[in-house]
Amino acid sequence: MKIIVMKFGGTSVANIEKIKNVAKIVSINSKKNKIVVVLSAMSGVTNQLQSYIDEIDYSPSEETDLVMTSGEQVTVGLLSMILNKQGIKSKPLLGWQIPIVTDENHEKARILNIENKNIDYHFKSHDVIVLAGFQGISLSGHITSLGRGGSDTTAVAIASSLSAERCDIFTDVKGVFTSDPNIVSNAKKIDKLAYEEMLEMASTGAKVLQTRSVELALKNNLTLQVLSSFTNVEGTYILNENKLIEKEIVSGVSYSGNESKLTISGIPDKPGISAKIFGLMARSNINVDMIVQNISQDGIFANMTFTVPTKDLSLAKKILQSSNNQINYRNLSSDSDIAKISVIGMGMMSQTGVAEKMFSTLAEKDINILAISTSEIKISVLIQKKYCELAIKSLHSVYKLSKT
Amino acid sequence: MKIIVMKFGGTSVANIEKIKNVAKIVSINSKKNKIVVVLSAMSGVTNQLQSYIDEIDYSPSEETDLVMTSGEQVTVGLLSMILNKQGIKSKPLLGWQIPIVTDENHEKARILNIENKNIDYHFKSHDVIVLAGFQGISLSGHITSLGRGGSDTTAVAIASSLSAERCDIFTDVKGVFTSDPNIVSNAKKIDKLAYEEMLEMASTGAKVLQTRSVELALKNNLTLQVLSSFTNVEGTYILNENKLIEKEIVSGVSYSGNESKLTISGIPDKPGISAKIFGLMARSNINVDMIVQNISQDGIFANMTFTVPTKDLSLAKKILQSSNNQINYRNLSSDSDIAKISVIGMGMMSQTGVAEKMFSTLAEKDINILAISTSEIKISVLIQKKYCELAIKSLHSVYKLSKT
Repeated sequence: MKIIVMKFGGTSVANIEKIKNVAKIVSINSKKNKIVVVLSAMSGVTNQLQSYIDEIDYSPSEETDLVMTSGEQVTVGLLSMILNKQGIKSKPLLGWQIPIVTDENHEKARILNIENKNIDYHFKSHDVIVLAGFQGISLSGHITSLGRGGSDTTAVAIASSLSAERCDIFTDVKGVFTSDPNIVSNAKKIDKLAYEEMLEMASTGAKVLQTRSVELALKNNLTLQVLSSFTNVEGTYILNENKLIEKEIVSGVSYSGNESKLTISGIPDKPGISAKIFGLMARSNINVDMIVQNISQDGIFANMTFTVPTKDLSLAKKILQSSNNQINYRNLSSDSDIAKISVIGMGMMSQTGVAEKMFSTLAEKDINILAISTSEIKISVLIQKKYCELAIKSLHSVYKLSKT
Repeated sequence: MKIIVMKFGGTSVANIEKIKNVAKIVSINSKKNKIVVVLSAMSGVTNQLQSYIDEIDYSPSEETDLVMTSGEQVTVGLLSMILNKQGIKSKPLLGWQIPIVTDENHEKARILNIENKNIDYHFKSHDVIVLAGFQGISLSGHITSLGRGGSDTTAVAIASSLSAERCDIFTDVKGVFTSDPNIVSNAKKIDKLAYEEMLEMASTGAKVLQTRSVELALKNNLTLQVLSSFTNVEGTYILNENKLIEKEIVSGVSYSGNESKLTISGIPDKPGISAKIFGLMARSNINVDMIVQNISQDGIFANMTFTVPTKDLSLAKKILQSSNNQINYRNLSSDSDIAKISVIGMGMMSQTGVAEKMFSTLAEKDINILAISTSEIKISVLIQKKYCELAIKSLHSVYKLSKT
C-alpha cells in the first residue's frame, strides 16, 4: 500500500467541527493508502503561548519549546479519537515518541534523524498515524521546535523518510497563487510549480509553505500538493521541473515587507571584510538576504547594503556597532520602510527580456529601485514600501498572470 | 541540603502574574533547600480540554490522556523561565522525562516507579526542578494521567521518593476547615490533622486534597501542609497522629453530594452474592462506598444498598442489569437526590457518645437517616439532599467546631 502524508494547519483544526472535517478527508484517503497525518495546533493557540513567553521576555530555550509544543499534543489526541470512533485504526504520536531527533537549536531546530521503524511498527496494527508537527527531541533529551510553520517541515521530512507517494499540505487557501489575492484581486491559482519556483516564492514572501519544507522536498524529489481543507478541489502541485510540460516565463509575483535594509558606508576596501560582516550575522543566526556592494569613487572605501528580517534589525545593528573595531566603517544606517518585489519563473532561464520588462514597468510608474538581486529563475528589487501594491499590480498585469 | 516539594494548583498558576507570585514563594524557600515544584495546568485549561473530549464523547485512553496532559507542559515551561531569569537555576521536566512510570489505567493511572536518579542528576546543576504534575508514562510508552487532582499525588509521590522534609500543597484556600466555609460561615481552619482524619475528610467530600495523595503520605510518613499561595500564613499540617498533642474528638464535618444510592432487592440470600456484585463494580473501576445489607423477614431474600459516584451510576445500573442471570435479584432502584454527611475525629476512638449525639441532633431536625456507616474515626450518614445544609450546620454547632 502506498503512503500519503497529509498535513493540516491550524485553521484546519481550529475546533472539533473542523477536526471532524479533517477526519473525513483522511477517511476517504485511508481506503486505498496508509496515511500519516501531521497536525499543527489549533489556530490561535500558538499565538497565545507565544504571548505568555513574550510577557516573560525569554530567549529560545528548552523552556520556550516546552511551552510552544504543547498545542499539537491536543489536536493529535482529538483527531485520533475521532478516527478511532469511525472505525479507522489510528495511532497518535508526539515528536519524541517516534523520535524525530533534532539538533539543539531551540525554536529553529533541524531534523537529524527520524526513526522510521517505529512508524512501520505502528502501521502493522493501524491504518493512520496522527503525528504532532513542529516538534522533535534533541540528543540531550530536550524538546525542540522547528520554528513557525515547522509542521510543513515535519510533514515533508516524514514523507521523504517513508518514501511517501505524495505530501499534501492542507491549509485555508486553495493553493499557490500568481500573487497575493488580497492585493491582486484577479490573481489565479497555479496548477503546477517547480520546486525552485516555489522556493523563490516562499523566500520572497508567499507564506503558503515554509521554505525549509520545499528545500527538503526538492532534495528528496517528493511531490507536494498545497490545497484547501475546506473545498474539494485540486490544489497546486509542487514537483520536479521535468514533470512540468510547459515552463512559465513568469509564474508569479511575490513580495516581502518584513525585511529592513542596512547600509554600512565608508568601509576600507580590503579583502575579507564581507566575510567578516556576514560571518557576524551568521553566527547570530540572522538571515541576510539581498547584498549589494559598491566601491566609492576614490577606490578606497566601499559601501555595503544588505537586508535582514526586521525582527533581527536591532540585533544586527548592535552586533555591527560593537564590532566596528574589526570592520572600521564610517557610518551605519537602516531603513525599515522597504519592500522586496520578486518575479519568478522557470522559463526565465531560456528567455531574455524579463528583467528589462520589470525595470521599465517600475520606471513607468516612477518607482525607484533601491537594490536588485537576481537568480536564474528570479529577479528581486527593493523599493519603498509605499509603492509595494502599485508595483505588484503593475507587474502582475504586464506579465499576463491574471485570470482570463 | 533538605528537599522540599511544593505543589501549586491551577488557580495559583492561572496567569503570568500568578506564576511570578509562585516564583517568589519558590525563591524564598530555595535559599535553604533544594526545591521540587509540581505544577498543575492553568485553571480553566483542563476543563477546556475536557470539554473537547466530551464533545467527541471518548472513553479514557491514550488519546484522552494525551490531550489532558498538555496543560502542565505550559506552566512548567513558564515558571522555569521566570526562575531562571531571577538567577535561580531551574530545570523543567515532564512526567515521561523523569520518568514517572505508571500502569496503563488511563485517566486514573497509578504510579509504579519514579526514577530518582534523574532528579538527583539535575539537582547537581540546578536549585529547583519544575515538574509537570498529573502525568506519567506507562510501560508501553503511552502518556497517562493520574486523574483529576492527580498533581497532589505526583507531589506526594516525588516527596516520598526523595525522602523530602515536607510536601507543601499550595491552593486557593488557607487550609483544611472544620467544614465547608461556603455552608458554615464560621467554620475555622484546622492547624493540625492526622492523616487518617484527612483521609476520611477527603473521601467524604472535602476536596482540598486528592485522597490518594494522603494515603501515600500516610504510607511514607510524609508531613503535608495545605496552604494558600495568596496569603503568607501557615496552613493545615497533615501528619502522623503521634505528632498531634491533643486529639480532637470531632475535627470536622464533611459532606458529599456526588454519590448516588443503588438498592438491589430480592436477592437470594446465598454466600458469594456480595462478592459477585462488588466484583462486578470493581472490574469496571467503580468505587463503591457505603454498603448496607439486610435480610428480609422470611430469611430467603436479601436487600443490598450501596452508593457509587453519580457519574458512574448509569454504568453501574447497566452492569447490574446485564448480570442479573448471575445475581437473580427482583428489583433494582436508584436515588441521586442524596447526600452523605460525616463527622470525623481521631478522638472518637477513645470517646463514646459521638454517634449518639449525631443521630439525636439529626432526629431533632426531623432528618431521616437512610444509611449509616462507621469507622474508628468517622461516622457517616446518608440523608436526603435537601437536608444537607441543615445537617452540616447543626452538627458543626453541636460539636463546638465554630470559631470563637
